Amino acid sequence: MATLQLASRTSDAWIEQATQHIDLILLDHANCEKKAAGNALSLLFRYPSNGQLVETLSPLAREELQHFERVHRHLQRLGIPIKPLSAAPYASLLNQHLRRPEPDHLLDALLVAAIIEARSHERLGLLGIHAPDPELRQFYLWLTAAEERHLQIYLDLALAHFCADHVQERLHTLLQVEAEILSTLHPEPRVHS
Amino acid sequence: MATLQLASRTSDAWIEQATQHIDLILLDHANCEKKAAGNALSLLFRYPSNGQLVETLSPLAREELQHFERVHRHLQRLGIPIKPLSAAPYASLLNQHLRRPEPDHLLDALLVAAIIEARSHERLGLLGIHAPDPELRQFYLWLTAAEERHLQIYLDLALAHFCADHVQERLHTLLQVEAEILSTLHPEPRVHS
Ligand SMILES: [Fe+2]
Ligand SMILES: [Fe+2]
Ligand SMILES: [Fe+2]
Ligand SMILES: [Fe+2]
Repeated sequence: MATLQLASRTSDAWIEQATQHIDLILLDHANCEKKAAGNALSLLFRYPSNGQLVETLSPLAREELQHFERVHRHLQRLGIPIKPLSAAPYASLLNQHLRRPEPDHLLDALLVAAIIEARSHERLGLLGIHAPDPELRQFYLWLTAAEERHLQIYLDLALAHFCADHVQERLHTLLQVEAEILSTLHPEPRVHS
Repeated sequence: MATLQLASRTSDAWIEQATQHIDLILLDHANCEKKAAGNALSLLFRYPSNGQLVETLSPLAREELQHFERVHRHLQRLGIPIKPLSAAPYASLLNQHLRRPEPDHLLDALLVAAIIEARSHERLGLLGIHAPDPELRQFYLWLTAAEERHLQIYLDLALAHFCADHVQERLHTLLQVEAEILSTLHPEPRVHS
């Protein structure tokens, strides 16, 4: 079974930034889970006749909403007021690399989703080790298992629709792009800063 | 507890049309469930700081996705090929009555959602009685209970944010609009034709 290896490791600077502003990270994380659900749903709207995609991404969207609800409960438990928060440039920079014509668009959308899940898996795992609150650490460790499953779902969908060499080549390019985007720490604390 | 009474009853002509084209109704119904999830999710994006809305509409969106998956399985069981289908004009005609400025927009969005749930509740209930396939009838009767709960969730959200008189007055207007939209049967078989 093919898997995915990120092209860079998250820096200690991010861990420092994130753990010192865990309130902002949680607020941003709630938005990320909501966007993960929205992204899966938009693929369901874009490819309504693709049975395999429908069967895997609808349950995935439900799971992201459940994550969203759990982040929301942690925000309330910790007394963090919910306020609007600008997103990190990460996702929109990645999305600039989605090719428009089909079937390239489907391949790129699946691989970018897989990469975002992989990076979330890595960073939420780091929060599972370093977050200041024990309940949060437990929550994040629980989450990382789901995000790893999600990355595999997106990667398997790509491999079910495109030949393995083609997937690997494009994946390699997009992994370099992703590592480049994160190579300088965004000044505002975010999951993907 | 306030509730909602539709301003018109579905005609026998719709029942006739729907039961004779149950394949198209099921395909359209899959789209409706997906759109119900998308609509709840878009309210979560639009009102991210509204705790009550987040807590009720995120689980509702998950439930709509579960309905979507179950419709999808019935399509497969019945060997109905999944193909793109134009939507009935119903939802877009209703959406024309959403006022843009806040807080009116929130009120209208909640009431239109409540009315759509109420109409779905009525029509899915009719399919629960008249659908040609016994498994489908059972499925539709199970669904109607959920859609009734959903209409109450949207109505309760409206009543939690606006005074009861204001809600009742606007609801009355929108119920008339909805009945007017459905007063002539759309020629193509749809859940809201
Ligand atoms: Fe998630
Ligand atoms: Fe995920
Ligand atoms: Fe539903
Ligand atoms: Fe519903």
